[in-house]
Amino acid sequence: MQQDRPPTSLGAEVMARLDALAGFSADADGLTRLYLTPAHAAAARQVATWMEEAGMSVRVDAAATVVGRYEAATQGAPTLLLGSHIDTVRNAGRYDGNLGVVTAISAVKALHEAGRRLPFAVEVLAFGDEEGVRFPVTLTGARALAGLVRPDFLEARDRDGISIAQALAEFGCDPDGVTRLARDPASVLGYLEVHIEQGPVLEDADLAVGIVTAIAGASRLVVTVEGRAGHAGTVPMALRRDALAASAEMVLAIEAEANGTPDLVATVGQIEVPRGAVNVIPALTRFSLDLRSPSDAVRHAALSRLDAAFTAIAERRGVTVTTQGSYDEPAAACAPGLMDALSDGIARLGLSPLRLASGAGHDGLALAGLCPIGMIFVRCAGGLSHSPAESVTEADVDVATRLLVDVLRHLRPESLRP
Amino acid sequence: MQQDRPPTSLGAEVMARLDALAGFSADADGLTRLYLTPAHAAAARQVATWMEEAGMSVRVDAAATVVGRYEAATQGAPTLLLGSHIDTVRNAGRYDGNLGVVTAISAVKALHEAGRRLPFAVEVLAFGDEEGVRFPVTLTGARALAGLVRPDFLEARDRDGISIAQALAEFGCDPDGVTRLARDPASVLGYLEVHIEQGPVLEDADLAVGIVTAIAGASRLVVTVEGRAGHAGTVPMALRRDALAASAEMVLAIEAEANGTPDLVATVGQIEVPRGAVNVIPALTRFSLDLRSPSDAVRHAALSRLDAAFTAIAERRGVTVTTQGSYDEPAAACAPGLMDALSDGIARLGLSPLRLASGAGHDGLALAGLCPIGMIFVRCAGGLSHSPAESVTEADVDVATRLLVDVLRHLRPESLRP
Repeated sequence: MQQDRPPTSLGAEVMARLDALAGFSADADGLTRLYLTPAHAAAARQVATWMEEAGMSVRVDAAATVVGRYEAATQGAPTLLLGSHIDTVRNAGRYDGNLGVVTAISAVKALHEAGRRLPFAVEVLAFGDEEGVRFPVTLTGARALAGLVRPDFLEARDRDGISIAQALAEFGCDPDGVTRLARDPASVLGYLEVHIEQGPVLEDADLAVGIVTAIAGASRLVVTVEGRAGHAGTVPMALRRDALAASAEMVLAIEAEANGTPDLVATVGQIEVPRGAVNVIPALTRFSLDLRSPSDAVRHAALSRLDAAFTAIAERRGVTVTTQGSYDEPAAACAPGLMDALSDGIARLGLSPLRLASGAGHDGLALAGLCPIGMIFVRCAGGLSHSPAESVTEADVDVATRLLVDVLRHLRPESLRP
Repeated sequence: MQQDRPPTSLGAEVMARLDALAGFSADADGLTRLYLTPAHAAAARQVATWMEEAGMSVRVDAAATVVGRYEAATQGAPTLLLGSHIDTVRNAGRYDGNLGVVTAISAVKALHEAGRRLPFAVEVLAFGDEEGVRFPVTLTGARALAGLVRPDFLEARDRDGISIAQALAEFGCDPDGVTRLARDPASVLGYLEVHIEQGPVLEDADLAVGIVTAIAGASRLVVTVEGRAGHAGTVPMALRRDALAASAEMVLAIEAEANGTPDLVATVGQIEVPRGAVNVIPALTRFSLDLRSPSDAVRHAALSRLDAAFTAIAERRGVTVTTQGSYDEPAAACAPGLMDALSDGIARLGLSPLRLASGAGHDGLALAGLCPIGMIFVRCAGGLSHSPAESVTEADVDVATRLLVDVLRHLRPESLRP
């Protein structure tokens, strides 16, 4: 993509680059960019080029994360990590993840063009595996920096039977090096990420950006209800043990629990009656449960109340219920020092410093094990993401990028150190 | 199947023949016998042989119904129709349908062996399409006798694109003849069928047989609920329009309606969230509704109350609901004259004359348009049918067959004529 004139604002530069980046896709007519695929490699090369233009030294680490480094004013200073991910879901929008990488590069570019060095080094990270679409594990790049990748993690395989280790080797990385990527916490000041909100709160509040307080922890379960099959016409209501009717009561109990509990959302996204027929009383139902809260205590208490509710419903109806957890990720609180730095920056821009939790997971979940984390959310239209209709405005993106530059200029390293 | 000694009771004869008939199947290790398949042809030939042995003249009509005729004592007498169907569901039990055909043949055989002619002719009908598994229409043989088959009915196609007309021709029948099978109501005295109950009522009452009062009418609908998709972690509960939560409330409203209405059963047998994901708020849900009652008025009133309940739930939750009827079959009342004749016969056997409605559909539904109908239900283990575990006892089958013989011997044609 050629431009006749350079963009006149940081927002315009970021938006143009996001449009260009959206061209690196496995689909001709949509955006799909999975971890360690040719589309990922092409996007990584483009990102590396922009990083170099912004005055950074660039390498691709063993987990295929593109790392651009902008040195500090003094040698031996700690490093502030910025960034996000450049992998996408299938048929994705162009802002989820990519926005955080491109704003970070533009922010460093602004410092570089102004000849400004900071009392800390800055590294922009373009992670490759946040969405977890290709492999059954996720956050590989961020986990590696936090020292959370064990060797067996890289044996996870995609649907074609290719392991992460094989795909990394084919990508040009050394899979054996992944477990040696762990950073020394003493060398890292923090991690700060810009990301679209993927929810409706900023739009409701009419604000361009918000300060994330925590990335919600999440529990995922599969709930299986077993009743007794029967003919839809011949079994009197009183003699039925209908697995679906019991499940319907559980779905409403889940909704009521979330409605009645602050800082909790709960979703049943999938339900099935295997081999169900219009004229057969359901013998078996399975449904998913996704429970999230910025507070692990709130989430675990809700899970325990729901477990009791499921048991009571099942006993009353003469069916059995079993729950199987498939995922349990603790919440990650954002660092007060980074939240305050963002508040100060937002105040300097003359805006309102709204704080909100992130219901979605992000690379920061893994990096919270390494260093203080912080996130800037950017308003997105309708709270929509994971869709080609995902949309942000240039004006909002300009605010987010200027905020990032401002915070980098003002951040005092000692404010993040205990 | 060879037998060294002739069976010592009607029940034993019927059970042995049902075991033999179960061998005519498309599956080597289960029973599947769909309309106009080679398994159907083989079973029809066996049934024809048994009819001939029982003193009947046999033909296969244009709809592939095997018709065995046992003449009356006098020429020009009306005809009493007996029988049921010899097609099955996939992986079926051996009693559903087949029991009614085999008991009718054994009853006529008993009359024939006793040299007994009746004041009416008897025809035993072995219908081939009661289950409606192969084609999207059903009761073809019985509808034909009642004059209810229009030419386009025979254009219904199976999953391989073969029409009923084509399949009939391949079976050796003349499809053009189907619309000419309608009987003159003046020539038909009534239709009497023996069938397993397919429900738990007789077992609960500890009775071998029961008298059917009506075949329930049935409505089938597909209910579609449309809400708004959203991220399971980022959309606050208050801003959700969850199609599945709304559907769960509707499923419970359906159950409550049936629990609170005598003579009504309602079943949601299928539900789906198309393209649902564990971490996405459901935008779309579809579920089936099957509603049955021996009273059409009760069924229609319930449908109308449910419609209003669905609308209220949808409005309160900001989702939309649409219902589409796929099937609406009126109830068929059994003839008082036949019910009384069965009561008298049961009394002569020294048993209790329990009357009960049939929640399942039967060939009598279609024949009710032609003549008075009646049904004898036989207790089946656990109320189970449409399963290899379908089971009846020889003793109960013996009672049912002796009852049929007794009723044939005592039935006065004038009791069925207005």
